Amino acid sequence: MAASINARTLKGFRDHLPADMIPRRQMLAAIERVFSAHGFVPLDTPALEYAEILTGKYGDEGDKLLYRFADHGGRQVALRYDLTVPLARLVAQHGSALPTPLRRYHVASVWRADKPQRGRFREFMQCDVDITGSATAMADAEILITGLGVLRTLGVEGFRLHLNHRELLRALMSSAEIQDPAQQTKALRAIDKWDKIGADGVRRELTTIEGLNEGHVEALMGLFYLADVSEADADGAGPAIANLRVLSQLRDALGDLPALTRLKEVLALLTGAGLADWVVLDPTIARGLDYYTGVIFETRLTDARVANMGAVMSGGRYDGLIGMFGKQPVPAVGISLGLDRLLAALRELDLVAAEHATASVYVTVFEAATAPASVAAARQLRQAGISTEIDTMGGKLGKQFKRGHKRGSRFVVVVGPDDLARGEVVVKDLRAGKQFSVASDQVAAAIAERQASE
Amino acid sequence: MAASINARTLKGFRDHLPADMIPRRQMLAAIERVFSAHGFVPLDTPALEYAEILTGKYGDEGDKLLYRFADHGGRQVALRYDLTVPLARLVAQHGSALPTPLRRYHVASVWRADKPQRGRFREFMQCDVDITGSATAMADAEILITGLGVLRTLGVEGFRLHLNHRELLRALMSSAEIQDPAQQTKALRAIDKWDKIGADGVRRELTTIEGLNEGHVEALMGLFYLADVSEADADGAGPAIANLRVLSQLRDALGDLPALTRLKEVLALLTGAGLADWVVLDPTIARGLDYYTGVIFETRLTDARVANMGAVMSGGRYDGLIGMFGKQPVPAVGISLGLDRLLAALRELDLVAAEHATASVYVTVFEAATAPASVAAARQLRQAGISTEIDTMGGKLGKQFKRGHKRGSRFVVVVGPDDLARGEVVVKDLRAGKQFSVASDQVAAAIAERQASE
Repeated sequence: MAASINARTLKGFRDHLPADMIPRRQMLAAIERVFSAHGFVPLDTPALEYAEILTGKYGDEGDKLLYRFADHGGRQVALRYDLTVPLARLVAQHGSALPTPLRRYHVASVWRADKPQRGRFREFMQCDVDITGSATAMADAEILITGLGVLRTLGVEGFRLHLNHRELLRALMSSAEIQDPAQQTKALRAIDKWDKIGADGVRRELTTIEGLNEGHVEALMGLFYLADVSEADADGAGPAIANLRVLSQLRDALGDLPALTRLKEVLALLTGAGLADWVVLDPTIARGLDYYTGVIFETRLTDARVANMGAVMSGGRYDGLIGMFGKQPVPAVGISLGLDRLLAALRELDLVAAEHATASVYVTVFEAATAPASVAAARQLRQAGISTEIDTMGGKLGKQFKRGHKRGSRFVVVVGPDDLARGEVVVKDLRAGKQFSVASDQVAAAIAERQASE
Repeated sequence: MAASINARTLKGFRDHLPADMIPRRQMLAAIERVFSAHGFVPLDTPALEYAEILTGKYGDEGDKLLYRFADHGGRQVALRYDLTVPLARLVAQHGSALPTPLRRYHVASVWRADKPQRGRFREFMQCDVDITGSATAMADAEILITGLGVLRTLGVEGFRLHLNHRELLRALMSSAEIQDPAQQTKALRAIDKWDKIGADGVRRELTTIEGLNEGHVEALMGLFYLADVSEADADGAGPAIANLRVLSQLRDALGDLPALTRLKEVLALLTGAGLADWVVLDPTIARGLDYYTGVIFETRLTDARVANMGAVMSGGRYDGLIGMFGKQPVPAVGISLGLDRLLAALRELDLVAAEHATASVYVTVFEAATAPASVAAARQLRQAGISTEIDTMGGKLGKQFKRGHKRGSRFVVVVGPDDLARGEVVVKDLRAGKQFSVASDQVAAAIAERQASE
């Protein structure tokens, strides 16, 4: 054998040990239940795609972060960067085999060669729901209702979903006489940093864009001020009312834009779902990804303990993406939940239950001759759905007891030669501090009864 | 936007559409319940590892199948090839943070640049359980009990687990005077093909190995004949008895090998678990992977419809692997279940239930003014855990009804303006062919009641 190999993980990649993995899985199960209750079905796509499927969809910055390489056949391939572009490819490829609209969810890892930092990894898990084939406000609303449903189900109370529309942003820029598409793209990128660098920071960045003068910048900033829901909510009427005020002010300033009509419809549907107070109109939301065309949204936690965590759930409408892979344009809207960031937040907020990693029952092995009887007892317990571990280390009974205790099992089962001769096993309830004998074919029933009586 | 991009997946990679994905997920959930009942906890490791972690563990053939590349920092990295080597790396890396023994399960995709063929893919999912830190026969038996428990739980009846020991194989070769390690490795590779090319094929391949003469080959083949459980079971006593006969014949031929003692202990424990008749001793099982050191096993389906499918569940003891990454050797044993192959077999055997992809309830939208009320009804149903879809395509009510019917929902909900004025909604039970009105705050209760009464 070779000299010892350094046991290490790549920077930005993590092992998930049981104490981390168990709450992750519980959270995933809860999320999938919500997705399913909202009428979404699961899909999966390969981790590797032809590189050309992924490039040119995430902007220049995104392209640089793709894990790309040539495979054994010399094909340029890349690890998936998100779950949205693979979905678009899939819909174009399998269109006729899929229902319209398609309501799918997808839970999977994605890879980005980003600079690792606190809470940002190169491999992380996304949970996405999307509706393809529908261009309606109802589809937009369904996506938001499902996303908000997940947060409510997980027990998160302090959050706001910031809602915007790409065409509203463009109209604001046009109204400020920023018309050139290249300038608009640069301005979008500056606005996208609002929650990190604040209004003054955005103003500074806007003034550095070639061709923009102070007049452009102040006109645009003035429109953002006009559209500030917290200003519109100065009387404490609540976000639902303030949103409508802002919409009306924007209509006065910009005219009857389809984007404003769409936002109004979506807000009405969210009101129907009892969720309007969790949503704020926010024209400063830009979303970095190139492919969005309609409503866009980001969800931020408001609790001070986690407020600096950034968006935990984002998405939008992308009516142009699927058409890039096929002959026909197909409208689509979706939301993506960052599992790792949300789990970190839930931990911070004490919303992650302490995990019970351990088997409920620890079966000891008295000696080689009684081992098959111990195995039989374990089998009976497991068939009854009772999580059971059997000692695989051996040694004296006292040592095995300690091992079971240390692992946190509530019950320890002993099958000694005398017990075996009587057709019995001994059960020790470590929590109650009691022990009892039971007929060997009744051990599962006896333990299930004690578990149920608490 | 660029010219249309060819929407395609890489050869050997697959999309999983809902009709495929739903039974996959149900099967995974069942498998994880069995793992958990047997006292195993989940772990996860990164998809990408330093290449040096993975190379040199799978033999030369395996090394060639690794997806390797240089990442953005110029590091040589590779996609994981199985779940065993990453576990070994993890145990060496996190040793003190882990319990001993560690009983972990891991369900994840692995990647091998293999030649794609029917049932063999370049990306596929493995479900592994392993015990690290224990060298006992009980640990070997626990792994087998858990693996066999999965198959039984999934409803598979026709299968045999073929059990062998690497040291028994070496002893057989030594007994046939095949002593040279290079010759042994070549012979192992020939024997490994037994189920594909048969005894005559193996004999032919053995004769091509340099340095082996007919005497070597016939001596070895004679030992395999001696150890043939189907011969030992000529009187129909069943595999459990025949296994013991073979063990005794092997002891006569080879002497008191520790490998034979270990196999006998494991079989006694499997008898305790009531599983001995599913297991056959089979000295022709070689397992290709380099890292095995003790018991090895492969599970084959015996039903004629799927008998040519190859092993669905394999594994063994690998006491040397973890030590390659650390200062200390750590014994380990595990089993790996190939989800894709097993699911294909279950389909063939009609053991996959028809999936119910669709939401139970389809809520229609009468008009824009009643849409918020439709959303409210959907919300109520979802909060009650009833899977509900709301129409996102619009159009006349008749068209929406057809859509709900086509999607297979049992109930269709209508909230018309008159219903809304009366505080009611209309529920159509498509299966019963009946419709009724109900107070709008009672729709979930009414539908739950009808669902429960079947």
